Amino acid sequence: MNGKNGHVVFLGAGNVATHLSLALFEKGYHIKQIYSRREETAKELARKVNASFTHRTEEIVPNADLYIFSLKDSVLPEIIRRMPVTRGIWIHTAGSIPMDVFSDSVRKYGVFYPLQTFSKNRKISFSGIPICLEASDEETLRLLTHLAESISGNIHFINSEKRRYLHLAAVFSCNFVNYMYDIGSEILRKEEIPFDILLPLIDETASKVRTLSPFEAQTGPAVRYDRNVMDKHLHLLENEKQKEIYRLLSEEIHVRHSNS
Amino acid sequence: MNGKNGHVVFLGAGNVATHLSLALFEKGYHIKQIYSRREETAKELARKVNASFTHRTEEIVPNADLYIFSLKDSVLPEIIRRMPVTRGIWIHTAGSIPMDVFSDSVRKYGVFYPLQTFSKNRKISFSGIPICLEASDEETLRLLTHLAESISGNIHFINSEKRRYLHLAAVFSCNFVNYMYDIGSEILRKEEIPFDILLPLIDETASKVRTLSPFEAQTGPAVRYDRNVMDKHLHLLENEKQKEIYRLLSEEIHVRHSNS
Repeated sequence: MNGKNGHVVFLGAGNVATHLSLALFEKGYHIKQIYSRREETAKELARKVNASFTHRTEEIVPNADLYIFSLKDSVLPEIIRRMPVTRGIWIHTAGSIPMDVFSDSVRKYGVFYPLQTFSKNRKISFSGIPICLEASDEETLRLLTHLAESISGNIHFINSEKRRYLHLAAVFSCNFVNYMYDIGSEILRKEEIPFDILLPLIDETASKVRTLSPFEAQTGPAVRYDRNVMDKHLHLLENEKQKEIYRLLSEEIHVRHSNS
Repeated sequence: MNGKNGHVVFLGAGNVATHLSLALFEKGYHIKQIYSRREETAKELARKVNASFTHRTEEIVPNADLYIFSLKDSVLPEIIRRMPVTRGIWIHTAGSIPMDVFSDSVRKYGVFYPLQTFSKNRKISFSGIPICLEASDEETLRLLTHLAESISGNIHFINSEKRRYLHLAAVFSCNFVNYMYDIGSEILRKEEIPFDILLPLIDETASKVRTLSPFEAQTGPAVRYDRNVMDKHLHLLENEKQKEIYRLLSEEIHVRHSNS
């Protein structure tokens, strides 16, 4: 990989692959090929980044400088097994997969984990996204740092062990958070109240933890242990699973704040 | 209540009372008195808004124009019972208490519910905060609208029945969300990773639901049903309750997205 003259192959065409390949393409990197198990998906992304595409591992070009694996975790090992011999560096973008998944296959490898939530229909700037790097050797790490710095000003060196915990924390702070929004939105939809009314609250909840710890920022009936309100809320919820979530989270918030 | 010349009494000196009285004080309203069961708390807020204070209900001044009850839900009925006869309007700021909690006590009453999370140590501007109003009569509603418009450009007329659901949706979208941040923060603390690394993710998760519905915005191992990742995560969690939360939310996300 020789700066922006290097050729990049993407394995995968999902949310991360889409946003990362677009960010690199926009910075002048040459995306040579997109591989995806589904030809249509590969083709769609390839068109956007001016690359060729394939859905056959045997057609993956062997002469690129960098191979970026952005696949579902359960699929990655199989694709690695089916890869042709290449001379390039192999990296993946997954939170929970150790770097050494590549150690039996290539000499130079690493991890390039962007700590962000990506949806295909949502544009995003990479500039502030934390990019967590790890590499098999100093030279590869320098190269990945250079690559990361070309799209973001927020680079971190994090090993495989710590990255697993980071991914786990991200599931709570993003995926589960979004699901809480989803339940909120369902409750309002039934009452024909527009979801927009929650946006200032959602924003402030996210902003608060810039100046207060989440522990200090906690508010609501559970932290006050206002049984009155909690019983009313449980009564309003019709969905048994939502009741279960409400009960479990309220109890845990209460326990967390009465021990302090 | 005659515009900003009216005199306001606050019953309660907690997070909502503190922020709301400060906002009104800064807009030129005259805060006459702060009542709180704890004298120290009443005194502390009274100093900030240039008001007198008391911790005895029998000392509450009877000649104010507006009485704003910002108390824990379970305490409100008792304080209402112990109130002196007054000529002013009575309103509360609670999400889950019907307006008619006042109907046996005074002729003019209402609700002024700011849909926001307030912490004493965090400054906040009221200007974008949704304020949900309800009143016993047209004249009181006009007066409350005027009051609300003096601090916010985001006024809603919402009845007691719908407000309960709004409060419930807010618990999911704010209080439970913050608790998810708290768990994320705890996971990182044990690994000595600074919480700040999650902030771009937290921001984007909140911003996404401005352009996508929470359903469309959902990402993560549970929506992909990546058992591989989920099993690893459950293995990393030491806290049994956190495991239970992880399992319950992941299952529900999966069910929600496989039915679609």
